[in-house]
Order: sequence, then C-alpha cells, then structure tokens
Amino acid sequence: MKTNLLAQIHSQTPIVLNVANHVTPQRVADGINYIGGSPMMVADPLEAADLAHIANTVVLNLGSTNPTAQELMLTAGQTTNQVQHPVIFDPVAVGATPLRRQRTQQLLDHVQVTVIRGNAGEVAALAGIKWEQHGIDAGQGTADPVEVAQTAAQQLHCVVVISGPTDIVTDGTTVYRIENNAPMLATNVGMGDVLDGLLGVAAGVSADLETIATATGILPVAAELAAGRYPDAPFSFIAETYNQLARLDDQTLQQRLQLQKN
Amino acid sequence: MKTNLLAQIHSQTPIVLNVANHVTPQRVADGINYIGGSPMMVADPLEAADLAHIANTVVLNLGSTNPTAQELMLTAGQTTNQVQHPVIFDPVAVGATPLRRQRTQQLLDHVQVTVIRGNAGEVAALAGIKWEQHGIDAGQGTADPVEVAQTAAQQLHCVVVISGPTDIVTDGTTVYRIENNAPMLATNVGMGDVLDGLLGVAAGVSADLETIATATGILPVAAELAAGRYPDAPFSFIAETYNQLARLDDQTLQQRLQLQKN
Amino acid sequence: MKTNLLAQIHSQTPIVLNVANHVTPQRVADGINYIGGSPMMVADPLEAADLAHIANTVVLNLGSTNPTAQELMLTAGQTTNQVQHPVIFDPVAVGATPLRRQRTQQLLDHVQVTVIRGNAGEVAALAGIKWEQHGIDAGQGTADPVEVAQTAAQQLHCVVVISGPTDIVTDGTTVYRIENNAPMLATNVGMGDVLDGLLGVAAGVSADLETIATATGILPVAAELAAGRYPDAPFSFIAETYNQLARLDDQTLQQRLQLQKN
Repeated sequence: MKTNLLAQIHSQTPIVLNVANHVTPQRVADGINYIGGSPMMVADPLEAADLAHIANTVVLNLGSTNPTAQELMLTAGQTTNQVQHPVIFDPVAVGATPLRRQRTQQLLDHVQVTVIRGNAGEVAALAGIKWEQHGIDAGQGTADPVEVAQTAAQQLHCVVVISGPTDIVTDGTTVYRIENNAPMLATNVGMGDVLDGLLGVAAGVSADLETIATATGILPVAAELAAGRYPDAPFSFIAETYNQLARLDDQTLQQRLQLQKN
Repeated sequence: MKTNLLAQIHSQTPIVLNVANHVTPQRVADGINYIGGSPMMVADPLEAADLAHIANTVVLNLGSTNPTAQELMLTAGQTTNQVQHPVIFDPVAVGATPLRRQRTQQLLDHVQVTVIRGNAGEVAALAGIKWEQHGIDAGQGTADPVEVAQTAAQQLHCVVVISGPTDIVTDGTTVYRIENNAPMLATNVGMGDVLDGLLGVAAGVSADLETIATATGILPVAAELAAGRYPDAPFSFIAETYNQLARLDDQTLQQRLQLQKN
Repeated sequence: MKTNLLAQIHSQTPIVLNVANHVTPQRVADGINYIGGSPMMVADPLEAADLAHIANTVVLNLGSTNPTAQELMLTAGQTTNQVQHPVIFDPVAVGATPLRRQRTQQLLDHVQVTVIRGNAGEVAALAGIKWEQHGIDAGQGTADPVEVAQTAAQQLHCVVVISGPTDIVTDGTTVYRIENNAPMLATNVGMGDVLDGLLGVAAGVSADLETIATATGILPVAAELAAGRYPDAPFSFIAETYNQLARLDDQTLQQRLQLQKN
C-alpha cells in the first residue's frame, strides 16, 4: 500500500473538478473536502477548459447524462489529457440504454481515461461481457469480476476499479483486492460517486496503481469503523462514515486496510 | 391496510424512475433505497422512454419545472401509460404561477396519472377550489381537505393523496385518513418528495387504493418513532427517520398505523 | 445588534427565492426553513419574474453558472429591484475564470444588489484587489480584509459581507466584525451558501446594516454551540448546527454573539 497517501493529500489539497450527476453532488463534494481535497463543479462548457486547467484531477460521471453533461465531459477530459493530469470516469448504468453506451463510446474515443470506476455490471458492459443489471444496481452475472476488470483494463488501457463486497483494482496485469466493506454503504445512494471523488483526490497526488488501490480502501475502511458504532442504522452510519473520513490517518488506514496483491 | 406491503417491496425491489426536482433528489433516492426500492433518475428526454421501460413506476415532480423537465415528464409518463405501469405526479406549487398551471394541464391532458400527491393548497389549485398558498407551503383555505381531495380525484380519475396533519387518500369515493404525523417533517425540505418516492415504490407492487393508503403511512410512522427519540432536534430527527425507514417491517407498520376508512 | 430579529422572522416567515447552485440546494433550503423562512427555488426564466413577485428577497448564487442560471439571476434580480425588495448576491469563485468575471459584471450592470456575501478572495476579485485563490476556497492575500470589504462596498454601493475566521460586514463606512466561528463549518461544502440564505431570510424582515450584521452571526453562533458537543466529528457537528438553528432564539443569540462595531 501507499503508506503516506493521506499525509500527502493533507499537505497538497488536490483540486478535483467534477462533472457530477444531479443527485449526489453534495455527498461527493463533502467527501472530497473531508479527506483533504478541494472540490469544484462545472455546469457550463464555456468554462470547462479553464476550470480543468486549475484542477489537479477531473472526475467524469455519466449518471445524469444529457447533451450539456456530455460536452462538459468531453471538454474537461480533453483539456485534462493535454495537461497530462488524471481523468477518472464512472460509467453509471452504462448498460441500461443505447444512449449511455453511445456517449461512453464517444467519450472513450476522445479522452484517454486514467481510471474507470464502476460496479461489476457497468464494467462488464464496457468490456462487452454479458451481465444482467437491475436499474442502477450491479445485478447478477456469471463472469468472474477479476476477469471482467482485467479485460476492461486491457481493452481501454487504463486502471479499472470494480466496487463490490470485494473491490478489485487492476491495470490489466497486476490485481489488487480490497476486502474491507460495509453493506450499509449500498443503502445510501451515491457512495460509488463519493468513491470516485476520493480516487480523484488521491490521483491528484499520484495515479499509479498502488496509490489507486490504497485510495479505493479509504471509504470502506472508514465505513467499517462507522458500522462498528451504528450496526443497524444506515443514516447514522453514513454520518459517522463522514466523521471517520475526516479523522482517518495513514497509520489507521495501514492497520485496517485488507489489501491483497497477486 | 395492506398487511404484507413491506415484505413484497423487499422481495421485488421495484425500480422507480424519477423526474426529480433539483433540490431534494438525494433525499428522494435515499428514501426509495431505504425502504427497499431501486431509484433511477433521468435528465435527458432521449433516454426517458428507455428508462421508463426498465422501471416499475415513474414519479413526476413539478418542483424545478423547465422545458427539459416538462419533456421528461411527458415522455416518461406517456411511455409508462403504454406499458400500463403506475404514474405518480406531484404538482409542486402548481398554484404559484401561470406557467405551472399550464404545464400541469398539458401533462394531465397527455398522461393518465395513477396517483396525485400534494398538499391541500396544491390539490385545491388542481381542482379549481379557492385556496391561499404561501410560497411552496400549503397555506390556508376554508374548504374541507376531504372534499378537495374527492373533487380532484373525481375530476382527474385517479387516486389523490393530500399530505398534512391528517393525510387523506381517496379515489373520489372511498376515503382513507392517516392520523400519524410528526410536525418536524415539515421543517425538513423535500419530505413530500420523499413520500412521492415511497408511493412510487409501493405502486410498483400494487397501485390499488388500500396499498396507496398503507404506503402513505410509512413515512409518518417512521417519523413518529424518530420524534420519540429526538423530540426537539429536527436534523437528528430526520436522520433517525431514515434509520427507521430502513428498519420498518409490516408488523410494526400494522401496530402503529392509524388508518381509518369511511 | 438587532435584538428581535429571530422573533420577527418567526412571525413573518419571509419567502426567499433562490437562484441556487446545483450542489448545495438541499442544505440551503433546509437552512432557510430551519430558522423560520420559506425557501423557493427557480429553474425556468419564464417564471422567474412571477416567483420574484411572490418572494420577499432573492438570493443569487454564481456557483453553477451557465446561460440559464445567468438569465434566471438577471430576471429575478431586475424584478426584485422593481418591487424594491432586497437582492443578495454570492459571487462564487468569481476570480477563477473570465466567464465568471464577465457574468458578474453583467449582473452588477443590470441589477442593484443589496448585499454581496463572499470569502475574502471573491470580494477582492470584485474590487480589483490582488488575491490568490485556491479553487473555490478563499486562498491567500496580503490585503486587509476590512479594506477589501470597504472598497467593494463603496464601489458597488451595497453592503458587503466577507466570511472568514472573523466575519466582516460593512456598507463602506461603518464596519461590524463577528468573532464567532467554528472551523468545521469549512469542512462542510456549501455553508457559505447557507449563510446567503439566512441573510436572505433576515433581509426579508429588514435589510439595514445592523440587521445584516446580526444575521451574519446566526450561523456561527449555532455552529459554536454544535462544536461544543461534537468537537471532532464534522458531520455530527453539521447535523447539530441545524438542530441549533431550529432552536435559536434572540436571547441566546444576544448572549453569544460577539459583534463589534467601529
């Protein structure tokens, strides 16, 4: 694991520009702020390039896709490519409609993404692997999530993070698994979006595979600490997860992170 | 009351597509998720029909009306009519501006809604009954809310739910009253929108009058349990209301629901 | 200080129309509601004038600037000028991009604002004073914030509120300082937007300098009470800050407000 990630975040305060969805931006912005980053959002393509220049990372979210959001993603993503900063992409419900598949294809044709973060169903849809989704949830599939992640990473030449009971982080060759989890995270809408934001903060420090794998563990580690205090109260749990995010240091992260590499 | 509603929701996980307003979508999505539904939001009319086909119910909210939201409501509503799934409509502040009245009329002309949920002032405006609103609040009127609800239900051929200290649910003939309430619900913006979402989840199981009446009681029952723990702290109260929503089962609902039919 | 501000708010329930950003509208609407105002949001320029006529104050936020938001700000602002009600303006990150500077200039050319509320960097950018911003944060500057506020107030003929460890409220001549603060406010995104909303509620009662100065202290006083209970848990702190907002009365505000005039 990256043993000084949180210290570096706290000393650098990376600026994360978000093309956010319309549902969870408050949670995302708070999450970025709580671990020591600085969130920005953009709503007008006319200033997307200027804001991308200010940012250390951009996070693109397909959740509330519409023509403006697509233009924001393309402009912010291409600008970020030009300045060689990391681009995080969350293909929310990409398998749900043809429009989402087309817009994702257009984005991937024009922007080199650094990290893709999704659930198993979303990444399977990207990789052309059969999977049955249920609305925005991961749904059911027979494929091995590790193979799904590796296939997508190889096809798209980026790091792929699949969230689930076990999180998987791979560049297509090396695979990290994170066993930390709290099922109540899934009761609260947008915690995947929050994870994207935390990956954006970490990528502002460094976007190597080990850093992304370590950063993927920040939210579930905080959530496990919170679940210990509020085992059956999902809203109190999510409030406490935020408290823990603000409090987390590298020592605690190192002690609790169940990260395996193979 | 419908005695196995929550069990059926938990076993079916109805997908609720929301044309949400811009203020409260996080609360709405969480509410749907907490009682066992699966929320989806839509922001692009180009995929509204596709997403409506995936959903079990759609919930249309006039709150942040604009041309795109109107097109989303029309397309999602008409598609849902075609597949004969339930449509919930919340005419937020319909009496406040001519634009809201026109757009509501256009929607009702092109979409057969299954359930309308509003406060007394909003439903009075729909039914052409005099009522004085105060911003987005219910305001004051001299008409009997039961008659207001019945008149609207008969005119619009749908179930009407009026929220207030006593909730009223009617198809124009049969009237249910729910006496459960917690005044602190009104301190938190968007709890009416959350109720819409919960009605959407329930309607995904069944949209008969008894089910809608039972579902209307879910939020006030959870809120009463929360108010018992946090009688004078409205934010702690709303957090606990969510905890209670996640925990509620049919047995507790049956014990606490004060539902009268006449 | 204005000694009966909260009592007057509670008796009048001022309606505050918000051209809000896309990130924090739930927090803003709740804040307005919790202290006894009535929040409305607007998303369609076609009804902006009608809603501005209903409102007692409008609050304009540059945060999610885009062409529609700009049109909403211009229409709502001009209408509010015509009916001689107060206009609050928050120039979020105005120094960050040329687009934000242009749109702010256009707004100030066409709307007479009553109160501008920003951090030191934003107000410095308005007044043409050198300041280095960091994303949406205040950043660092060498100028005296009091002089920055006075210069902006004189140039723009309005009350200026600069938020920070010490809040400054001035009409360009008289200066109020508020020493109440809780650093955890800054951990939670949008608390400046919430302050704007609270100023909007207060301005619905009266927009004189003393009232605006008193109103500026409401949020930090509530936050100090909350920080006493949750000194190292920023999310529990913000929840408790809302509880305190709902509970605050003029007597407590008077006892705790550290307001200095010179």
